[in-house]
Order: sequence, then C-alpha cells, then structure tokens
Amino acid sequence: MSIITLLSDFGTDDAYVGIMKGVILKVNPAVTIVDITHAIAPQDLVQAAFTVDDYYKYFPEKTVHIIVVDPGVGSDRAIVAMETEKHIFLAPDNGVLTRLMDGAVVGRVVRVNNKRHFQEPVSKTFHGRDIFAPVGAHLSKTLRLNDVGEPIDPGVLVRLSLPRPYLTEEGTVAGAIVSIDRFGNLITNIDWRYLKERFATATMPSLKILIGNRIVKGLSPSYDSSTPNEPLAIIGSRGYVEISVNLGSACAYFGSDKGDRVEIIKP
Amino acid sequence: MSIITLLSDFGTDDAYVGIMKGVILKVNPAVTIVDITHAIAPQDLVQAAFTVDDYYKYFPEKTVHIIVVDPGVGSDRAIVAMETEKHIFLAPDNGVLTRLMDGAVVGRVVRVNNKRHFQEPVSKTFHGRDIFAPVGAHLSKTLRLNDVGEPIDPGVLVRLSLPRPYLTEEGTVAGAIVSIDRFGNLITNIDWRYLKERFATATMPSLKILIGNRIVKGLSPSYDSSTPNEPLAIIGSRGYVEISVNLGSACAYFGSDKGDRVEIIKP
Amino acid sequence: MSIITLLSDFGTDDAYVGIMKGVILKVNPAVTIVDITHAIAPQDLVQAAFTVDDYYKYFPEKTVHIIVVDPGVGSDRAIVAMETEKHIFLAPDNGVLTRLMDGAVVGRVVRVNNKRHFQEPVSKTFHGRDIFAPVGAHLSKTLRLNDVGEPIDPGVLVRLSLPRPYLTEEGTVAGAIVSIDRFGNLITNIDWRYLKERFATATMPSLKILIGNRIVKGLSPSYDSSTPNEPLAIIGSRGYVEISVNLGSACAYFGSDKGDRVEIIKP
Repeated sequence: MSIITLLSDFGTDDAYVGIMKGVILKVNPAVTIVDITHAIAPQDLVQAAFTVDDYYKYFPEKTVHIIVVDPGVGSDRAIVAMETEKHIFLAPDNGVLTRLMDGAVVGRVVRVNNKRHFQEPVSKTFHGRDIFAPVGAHLSKTLRLNDVGEPIDPGVLVRLSLPRPYLTEEGTVAGAIVSIDRFGNLITNIDWRYLKERFATATMPSLKILIGNRIVKGLSPSYDSSTPNEPLAIIGSRGYVEISVNLGSACAYFGSDKGDRVEIIKP
Repeated sequence: MSIITLLSDFGTDDAYVGIMKGVILKVNPAVTIVDITHAIAPQDLVQAAFTVDDYYKYFPEKTVHIIVVDPGVGSDRAIVAMETEKHIFLAPDNGVLTRLMDGAVVGRVVRVNNKRHFQEPVSKTFHGRDIFAPVGAHLSKTLRLNDVGEPIDPGVLVRLSLPRPYLTEEGTVAGAIVSIDRFGNLITNIDWRYLKERFATATMPSLKILIGNRIVKGLSPSYDSSTPNEPLAIIGSRGYVEISVNLGSACAYFGSDKGDRVEIIKP
Repeated sequence: MSIITLLSDFGTDDAYVGIMKGVILKVNPAVTIVDITHAIAPQDLVQAAFTVDDYYKYFPEKTVHIIVVDPGVGSDRAIVAMETEKHIFLAPDNGVLTRLMDGAVVGRVVRVNNKRHFQEPVSKTFHGRDIFAPVGAHLSKTLRLNDVGEPIDPGVLVRLSLPRPYLTEEGTVAGAIVSIDRFGNLITNIDWRYLKERFATATMPSLKILIGNRIVKGLSPSYDSSTPNEPLAIIGSRGYVEISVNLGSACAYFGSDKGDRVEIIKP
C-alpha cells in the first residue's frame, strides 16, 4: 500500500491538481493520494515550510510527500528528493523543506535529474505535471532515491531564514503570528518547548501574552476555560502558542495579520 | 472494502483534514476516505445536523461517517459512536446527529472512552486528529462499537431544537430557509411528505409560496418549467421545498438569508 | 483498477459531490475517484468545454470522465456516453464535449436511456446523483457503452460555438482570454500550433502581444526570463499563449477579464 501526499499553491479551481493525479495514477495505479491543501498563498515559501512540518509525521512510514510551491519553475533551481527516517519528500530546492530539516533526521538527498521518469516534453511552467507527479509516483513504487537522481550533500540545500522566537532584553519571549486558520486562531512560532526552557519556573496560567497593545492572561488548558467570545492563549495542537477566542475568531477580535508580533511575559 | 466519510468545519485551507487522513491511513491503510464537505460554517451545529441527513443514506452499508463540528472540543462533552441499520456514525455529543435520529432506526450507542485507540498525547484542541480519526479508522476495520467505549442510552444524547415547519392559524404552512447552495437555491425545512399530509387535496401547481413579500406561484416539476431568470419553487433532490431561479440565483433574486421565513399557501 | 474523474459546477461547500461518490462506491467499491474541479462557474458550458480538453489525456486508458455542468437538468436534454480511442466520457448533451470532439478521435456514442442503472426515483434536479454517478460507476466496471443506452450519430450532438483565434485584415492573430487561473495567469485561446502556421517565419522573441492598450514584447521561454513583477507572454503548459507576471498576477496587472481581446503582432 503506497501513499502520496500533495501540498501546493495551485488552488482547486483549476484542473492542475487533477492533472497531477492523472499522471501519478498512470505510473502507480494502486497508490492512495491525499491532498493536504492546495491553498498555500501563491508562492509563499514560508507558509509552505511551516505547513510541511505540521502534517508529515502523521502519515504512515514510506509515504511520499510531494510539495509544489515553486515560484522558480522553469528556471535552473533544482528539484530534490530527500529521505528522513520514515518518509520521502520531493520538492523544489527553494527552502520549503527548511523546518522539516530543523526537526528531522535527514538521510540521503538526491538532485532529481534522471529524465527517464519525466513526462516529455517537459514544459517550462508546469513541473508539477511533468516532473513532480511522475517522479513522485515512481518513488512511491520503488522507494529508491537513486533511481531519480544523483546524491548531493544536504548542506548545500537552500534554507529560508524563518522568523524564530527570541528572548528580549526585558526578559520576555518575542515571536510572530505565522499562520491564521479558518477559525481565526492565531498560530505563533513560539514552541512550547522553547517557552518551557526560558520560563522554567513560571506556571502556565501566570504568563501574560501581549498582542498589539492588549494583554491575554495565562496559557489556558482548553478553549472552554474562557468565557464565550473572550480571548485565550493556549498551546495548540501543533505545539505552538496560539491565541483563540472561545466560539469566535481571534483574527477578527484583534484585527491581526500574519507577521504581527506576539510577546510572552513572565510575571 | 471499508469506507470512511468526513464532515467538518475545518475548511481546506489548513492541513487539518490532511492530518486526519494520515492518522486514519496509519490504522487502516486499505480504507477509502470520502470528503463530504469541510465548509460547514465554523461551529454551526444546525447546518451540520441537516447535512448529515442529506448524504449518509447514499453510501454503502457499513460506511463509517465521521463528523467533526465540535465547538466543545477539549471540554467534557462526550464523543459517541452510533449504529443505525446500515451505517456507523462517530460524532461529538452536541446535537449534530439530531436529524439523523429523527429519521433512522438507531441501534447501539457507545460513549467513546476506550483510550486504547486514541493517538497519545490527546491534545485539547484537535480531537479530529487524536480521537475521531484513529477511533473511526478502527471502527472501519472491525465495525465493533464495543471496542471503543461503553454502551449508553440513546435517549440521553444531546438534541438540537431544529426549526420545524408548522401549520399557522391561517392554514398556511410556515417554514424557514435552512441552507443556500452554490447555485443560490434556497433550501427550506418543508418536507414534501409534511406538505402532502397538510394539503392533501391541493395540487402542487395550485400552491403559492410566500417569500419576503413576494409570491412564487405553484410547485414546478423541474427548473426548465419557468422562464430563464424567473423564480420557481420545486421539490428539491433532498425532498424539501426549494426556491430557485432558472439559470440564475434565487439567493440574489430575493436577497435571502439563512433563517428567512417561507410560507406555503393553499388556494 | 478503474478510475472515474469528476468535473462539475457543484462547488465543495455542499454535500452534492460527496453524495455522488457514495452512489458510485455502492456500484463499484473498488474504483478510484479523482476530483478535477467542482469550481466551474455555475452553468458555464464554455469553461467546462475548455477544461475537459485540458485534463482528460493525462489519465490512464479506460478512465471514465463524468462531467456534470448541466443547466438543463430535468428538461429533455439528452445524456450521452462517448468513447474516444482511450477514454470514456459521460456528460449532458449540451456542448461540454465540443473541444474534446475537435481534437479526439470519437468512437461510439450512446444516448443514455437504459433506466436499469439509474438510481430510482430519478429527481428532476440532481441527475449527478441519480443518473451520472450510477451509470458512470457501471461503465467503470464494464466499459460497455451498449449497456447504458442506444447508439446515436456523433454528428447530432450539440456543439458550442467557442471563441476561436483568427487572422485579422492587418495580419495580426486575434484571440481572447478564456480562463484566468489562481496565479492570475491569463490563458488565451491562441494555440501555439495555430500561431506557428500563421507566423512561420517569425521568431518567438520577435512577436508583440497587445492586451488592452499595452504591449508585451516577445514570447518568453519561461517565467524567470522577465524581471520580477514584469509581464511576459509564454506558451503555457496547455499549449496556448498565456500572459503572466513573474512572481505576480497578470490579472491584477492588466485588470483583465475573461473574454478580453488579445492580439499577436508579427514584426
């Protein structure tokens, strides 16, 4: 049983994703294809890099994860296939694997240059169809990276400079909103492990969260620990500090945007 | 061959649904997963309850229907698994099964509390990933409700007080718009069976439908029985009175909203 | 291994598509179902006709392509099943197969009138559920068109009068924008083969593209051959002239709409 996941910025209004699935099924008719999302903002590598880290670990071993957020399509940017302990990733070498590589044990990496598996002629604008789909489908059958390209040193891969939380001079932890979900939850880049290290002696309910010029008091254990329509901060399901409004939208409540600063203050 | 359907208010812009599918495939790699929709308005239990009743019966026997519209996630609300004659449902105990229970023969119901099938650690904010997905996947393999929790009396389940049609003092049938689809069709809660009972002697074309302060004449047999861009009322594919505009949008034509009153007048 | 693709204007906010999949899986539980898109503009036959031609050829032989863009549902318009060399199509007889028939070798065509495979009772408003899904699922199992209806002459099928490029008196090639994708790329109806025939002696970089009252110079080989945020024209992945903005949206840049005129000028 082989599985391929698809992450892209193609949207679902056009036939692009359907076409990729057709090409995949030609090569591996028995594969199960799972859409993660195709709503990454067009060419938003940072959002893609954070998203990859959110989902891959929930899939069975040997899943092939195809990521096509690829503003450089048609240029000489490389396409790479990467093995971690349990999964295979196929992506442009543009930094979308940055967060994954921060957290996972990276094994072999190859530069995808074996044209045998490409769908010819290769267009200059839709490598999703002509390279990612057929190469990913081949990998889902054989799991052999060497089939699709030449080994390269993982150290040479492009890395994004992602926003990271840091300790300010005042001793607070400063971070940023990196994602806003459909419920209006504000997902920050402040990992609970990082917070625990910095604020070892503080209890979660004693912390204060500064967003805009407003304060949210305490890290709550769950949504229903606040009054309906009141904001709360919580360690979300991804392991990051998130700001929510119980039964409402924190995005609307605070008028927040991606990139906005969030600060956590020890009492 | 086992099938799982997914209904949620997660949207498809985030990775939530993809993550649930990863967890499901870890437990049951051979399952077929079908998305019903993830566009239920955030936390809209009424819309979810009406939608469940629309689709489940079209699926093969023994399909497991997972419903995650769950504003109480992380609170002490229960999660239940329910058997009807032909299907299995897994949902929070918050009323989303209300319409289903009105129409179906309910068999066993269990409160899902066997943590053996949970994905640990269970977060407080994403039971879709940590409980619904793995428990639903287990059910799709064994079909044994007793594996996942303790039997409870169906009579104790939360029920929503849903808008129902009624006979007014003037002898008209009054109902409400409960859903508006992509074509702008206005779907009411007035069931054709209910209408037939009340208006036994009236012919369909002789009825008048009052919406806002406008009248639509007669229940039509199909869209093309009206002039293009003219409104018509019809018994829709769900068995309810719907108001449509032939080749146009009734929602735009009448400026209607969910909840708006609709009245049916016998001549 | 059998495959069904679905193209519709149903959107994904309602349960319509999920219901069709339930009906399909009842008839053929082993089929793989692929969504192309359900975001065809409501009842837009032209967009549907262009889209069909974009994706079908990327699917394995014997795929059954179901197309439900069907403003005439419930009227006496026919439903047809058509065989080409490698694929089967099931669609209303309303012109959505026009472009396919222009390019493919059409084999047998039947008018779908064998009610044995219909889901009874057949509604007047949702043939997707009651006819297309069960008939398509049956075809995906047997591949025998004769099972589902009576042969008819392909020549009698409804054809749309689609916008085609033409040579103007001034010797330019005039066409139109037929589609705008999520990236804001403007896809025209000017096929590179047509262009090559007309402008045999001209080199691609020497052409000028007139859109609105602005000129884009030259047909570029790939997106990165222009400066970021500058427009370029390119032969897109479908084989048509497309106008793009490198790392931006041509739709926003030019303020373009579907139907807008595009002209190509030989130096």
